[in-house]
Amino acid sequence: MISVSDVLDELHSSLSDGQVITDPDVIDSYRRDQTPALAPGQPLCVVAARATADVTATLAWAQRHEVPVVPRGGGTSLAGGATATDGCVVLSTATMSAICEVDPDNEVAVAQAGVLNADLDRAAAAYGLMYAPDPSSYEISTIGGNLATNAGGLRCVKYGVTRDSVLGLEVVLAGGRVLRTGRRTVKGVAGYDLTSLFVGSEGTLGVITSATLRLRPRPPVYPRTVAASFANFEAGARAVTAIIAARVKPSLLELMDRATLRAIDDWKHTGFGDGVQALLIAQDDSDAAEAGAERMRELCVEHGATMAEVSGSDDESRQLLELRRLSYPALERLGVPLVEDVCVPRTLLPDMVARIEQAGQRHGVFIATVAHAGDGNLHPVFVFERGLPEVPRPVWSAADEVFRAALELGGTLTGEHGVGVIKRRWLADELGPESMAVHQAIKNALDPAGILNPGKAI
Amino acid sequence: MISVSDVLDELHSSLSDGQVITDPDVIDSYRRDQTPALAPGQPLCVVAARATADVTATLAWAQRHEVPVVPRGGGTSLAGGATATDGCVVLSTATMSAICEVDPDNEVAVAQAGVLNADLDRAAAAYGLMYAPDPSSYEISTIGGNLATNAGGLRCVKYGVTRDSVLGLEVVLAGGRVLRTGRRTVKGVAGYDLTSLFVGSEGTLGVITSATLRLRPRPPVYPRTVAASFANFEAGARAVTAIIAARVKPSLLELMDRATLRAIDDWKHTGFGDGVQALLIAQDDSDAAEAGAERMRELCVEHGATMAEVSGSDDESRQLLELRRLSYPALERLGVPLVEDVCVPRTLLPDMVARIEQAGQRHGVFIATVAHAGDGNLHPVFVFERGLPEVPRPVWSAADEVFRAALELGGTLTGEHGVGVIKRRWLADELGPESMAVHQAIKNALDPAGILNPGKAI
Repeated sequence: MISVSDVLDELHSSLSDGQVITDPDVIDSYRRDQTPALAPGQPLCVVAARATADVTATLAWAQRHEVPVVPRGGGTSLAGGATATDGCVVLSTATMSAICEVDPDNEVAVAQAGVLNADLDRAAAAYGLMYAPDPSSYEISTIGGNLATNAGGLRCVKYGVTRDSVLGLEVVLAGGRVLRTGRRTVKGVAGYDLTSLFVGSEGTLGVITSATLRLRPRPPVYPRTVAASFANFEAGARAVTAIIAARVKPSLLELMDRATLRAIDDWKHTGFGDGVQALLIAQDDSDAAEAGAERMRELCVEHGATMAEVSGSDDESRQLLELRRLSYPALERLGVPLVEDVCVPRTLLPDMVARIEQAGQRHGVFIATVAHAGDGNLHPVFVFERGLPEVPRPVWSAADEVFRAALELGGTLTGEHGVGVIKRRWLADELGPESMAVHQAIKNALDPAGILNPGKAI
Repeated sequence: MISVSDVLDELHSSLSDGQVITDPDVIDSYRRDQTPALAPGQPLCVVAARATADVTATLAWAQRHEVPVVPRGGGTSLAGGATATDGCVVLSTATMSAICEVDPDNEVAVAQAGVLNADLDRAAAAYGLMYAPDPSSYEISTIGGNLATNAGGLRCVKYGVTRDSVLGLEVVLAGGRVLRTGRRTVKGVAGYDLTSLFVGSEGTLGVITSATLRLRPRPPVYPRTVAASFANFEAGARAVTAIIAARVKPSLLELMDRATLRAIDDWKHTGFGDGVQALLIAQDDSDAAEAGAERMRELCVEHGATMAEVSGSDDESRQLLELRRLSYPALERLGVPLVEDVCVPRTLLPDMVARIEQAGQRHGVFIATVAHAGDGNLHPVFVFERGLPEVPRPVWSAADEVFRAALELGGTLTGEHGVGVIKRRWLADELGPESMAVHQAIKNALDPAGILNPGKAI
């Protein structure tokens, strides 16, 4: 019988020195992502890939020995998408971090999977361009992880999600074959849209090693920003609907609830405390930003804002954005935050928030909500006691209610974080049996041994 | 042994009167699409579906008897995508033409597959919205066909292709199961992106019966329009690159070559005859259209335009667009037009046009080119003698050179028309063996009997 040590030796022999990591301390740091209170498995080893050939060698080896493969970028998943399983190889592409090309005239970049989102954006900035997708983790998450989860962000309301900025991929398939999907052109219909199939497949169909990405003209650094407070979340949500209906094209439209605002105020003394029940932050990054921002301010006033102001300076804009970015750290001060991610048709935001509040009250769970309101994407943050081995039962009961409510309202379990480990038990409720069967058929076609990120996504 | 008549009786019995058509004259009108000089097969029958259940019944029957299914919308394919094969059932969804819902606040519509593109757009217009994808066939092509081919159009340069306006689908799979993909929300990452997999799959994976579509704010009917003439196509293409680089956001950016302009002038005496070697037509449909159009005019002048003017009236705008729309009928006066559809990185437009001209000269074929220049998408129109049973060999030889040139320049065989029948022999050159294998694996997973639109797309 072949021993574990023989199997590992074989992997060592096909990679360079230092690429196969078996040091228990290092392995330990690769077991978890940023999802709280999950019990990860114990990996066999970690592979730090430096080139596509390393990924090929690892996947060929994994197939031969039926070793589960957990692909990993920055490890910032909030859904357990990069959680290790027992006996797996954690395959890190974070070490493949070359920006291979920026073509400013065609507004295209080619980047390896391990490039940090913010680094790509900075490289684009040198040409007056930007990489639009901006998940909150942009300084620490990788393009590969962003692609695998079809990550969203704050600017989606104007620029779309990660998928909308991808032209083509290099993907290593189960067994090690290298597939190239898509193209360098914006249009192209030769063959199936395999690019979109791999984007958002959470590492279950192949390992993305590089991508051809679309860049866009870079807007001003600090666009005009509007802040408006409301007597309740519903009024804020109505203002959001009015802004969209008025054909203003905000580049950001965020709504924060009272619980979030209090958590920030308790920490930073912002003044958005007791009196303010909901705060809307909106931006217009167009050439007509001044007029757009003023129109949004007026619409907020027309829809009952108790305060509505346009930022007078870049500094004020920055501070308002900073306020939004403080939501999670502020909630983290109160306990362990489980950040959820439902999405509903935009006009049903008030209904969804009411359902979230009811679920929190019914199960005695503290929930604070921040919404990418322009997209109907809400992040109810369930906060619970520190130091528990797993998520407490009432939190899951409340989350269960929240997920079911999102589906009842014609929405989805996950707008941008992915299914990962934590939402699998609800997935069939959203997709239905036919869709589950098609998912399984595609998975079987591309990963018949079922070793790519098992237990995730589908 | 079961007879053909028994098999047809079984189909009759599961559908309503008049839905199964076997009249030879009617069948004859369903054998061809708008691709010239293809020899279609002889269908067994035509089914005019009125509801999803009819499609289900037809696909279940087809699977039982291994009858090939050729799905059909408006029959406007230019790639042979809806050409009948021998012994097939032509399954028309053109008769499923209900606009089920327009939700103006969430900017969403639900439409059956047979709704005409222009009808959906008109329904949206009642709410100040538009359905953005606008293939040239918009008055006669169906949403179902647009989805199956991921149709493009003139406005893609600003609003993207059909895929960018689709949120979810109802699809009947081989055997008759009904799959629902996607959702009503703009964001959503639960499961694989099956919506994008079916969009552009040319009827080979399932039959789309209805779709949840994204609407957008409706711009003015006649946006400001710029017309600029150039001493050669290359100069026009350089102006296109300059317009994009200048961050102007044109809603349309079309470039016509000398051969096209002469064909129109010979017919309509437009004045764009001998002296003009290339004509650029650009539009800005934004609120800042006046400034945008003026900026584009200036850029044309800076890049050597021999004439550049902004339309003074809606009527002038309309006439310029009309000029563009006259390209194909004008070329049709000269013979049979085979409209091709390559796409290259935008900055390589001049190279591609040069390669097209060389191919035409080398093989003695008349080629006129119109380009959706903002996307790098060119339509070289190969014109040949009327009344031939098939496309003459020199035309294919020239087309072969054109396709290979597009691939060499990092482009694609087809920007928006699809592979259909006519580009299959080049598909592997673009996709490569790994991609072809993945395509086949997915096809086998979803249509193991291989009866959905056989001989098309992959």
